[in-house]
Amino acid sequence: MKGSLLYEGKAKRVYHTADESDQLVLSYKDDATAFNGKKKDEFAGKGRLNNLITSKVFQYLHQHNITTHFIKALNDTEQLVRRTDIIPLEVVVRNQAAGSITRRLGIEEKTSFTPPIIELFYKKDELNDPLINDVHAYHLTDITEQELTFIKQQALDINIELQKLFRSAGLTLVDFKLEFGRLKDGTIVLSDEISPDTCRLWDKETGEKMDKDVFRESTGDLIDTYTKILHRLEESVCAK
Amino acid sequence: MKGSLLYEGKAKRVYHTADESDQLVLSYKDDATAFNGKKKDEFAGKGRLNNLITSKVFQYLHQHNITTHFIKALNDTEQLVRRTDIIPLEVVVRNQAAGSITRRLGIEEKTSFTPPIIELFYKKDELNDPLINDVHAYHLTDITEQELTFIKQQALDINIELQKLFRSAGLTLVDFKLEFGRLKDGTIVLSDEISPDTCRLWDKETGEKMDKDVFRESTGDLIDTYTKILHRLEESVCAK
Repeated sequence: MKGSLLYEGKAKRVYHTADESDQLVLSYKDDATAFNGKKKDEFAGKGRLNNLITSKVFQYLHQHNITTHFIKALNDTEQLVRRTDIIPLEVVVRNQAAGSITRRLGIEEKTSFTPPIIELFYKKDELNDPLINDVHAYHLTDITEQELTFIKQQALDINIELQKLFRSAGLTLVDFKLEFGRLKDGTIVLSDEISPDTCRLWDKETGEKMDKDVFRESTGDLIDTYTKILHRLEESVCAK
Repeated sequence: MKGSLLYEGKAKRVYHTADESDQLVLSYKDDATAFNGKKKDEFAGKGRLNNLITSKVFQYLHQHNITTHFIKALNDTEQLVRRTDIIPLEVVVRNQAAGSITRRLGIEEKTSFTPPIIELFYKKDELNDPLINDVHAYHLTDITEQELTFIKQQALDINIELQKLFRSAGLTLVDFKLEFGRLKDGTIVLSDEISPDTCRLWDKETGEKMDKDVFRESTGDLIDTYTKILHRLEESVCAK
């Protein structure tokens, strides 16, 4: 099934398919990185958890009419996706203040944002993925104004669906990061992953942090936490 | 004329008028600061030059139907202005890449921006005036979407007028920073100053930097440079 390696990122490897079709194989790694790679570790089983969680989330989004690159999980750590050219933007949606925005803008953690705040970051490791505005995005990437409007609307629609999904799993969706890619015909679709690596999820009752912040802040066991997320999603009425 | 001190900033002191009217007196200081106050010095005569240059520029803008807070120069270092509540945003217009944007986004110096790039920074010393996007601005300040659209359009209109003015003085306007304030009736007008402290100006023929970069980069005499700018503006056909 898997052909040659196309690209290796911090959390995944991307392979051609054996028949060089317009599909790719994403292989989730056990590596965890934070603070733009300054903190690093490896957790046996993390790749499996993120693959299974992302697969569940993307299937759920498909059921709610959000188009993504996802086709199917192939095995515990790999999934088949449609080939896209990734647009080098990280699209962050924030329902509540947490993480970098609290330090950057002096906003207290847990401050609610209604409507949610959308932020764009330029995906460029050597610049530490800087925050940019819309006009920067037009200058730095090939997206048009119309496409960026579409991406932001998609991000808000996805936020509504994900909030429902995670709420039914007893979790508050604090913020999350999306990446979009372009199919061969130019259509923009949601790509990359949606997992506790890319979302902040807090227990609805206790407020406990159940995402990569347990690794960033060394406050809990990453594998235990991600396992709980997968189980809660499996038990959620929404994700069935 | 001058009443009690209302506020002291890095480059100016703001006084009430003696009669406590809706006017204020801006007193330009000789201090120069850069890199959010990390580099500091004092240059005898700088306050006078920035007061006279700003007065000339604001008079020119009035002739071109741009409303500002400026009323008149009172003496060498002071000017009378309409009282505004400053909106805590720095509005930066960039015609070419220079300074922070080259480091932040890895864009080569002198890259042209057509249309110009507008950036918003949140005026907050303790956060080092971070770059923000429009939605941050709605959250952090009291401006509305309609007002921000107005401010951006004003910034572009001012850019066109300033480019003409400086071109006729043999200078290329590379970028500049504006601040806007609200009059008692809520109207938003251009406030603060427009001087070589707040603009990047390059000699049209030689490319020589003729602004605060001579201080930032320790590449020239600040007073000589600012004196040249004032003389060129006095000789310019536009500024008459």
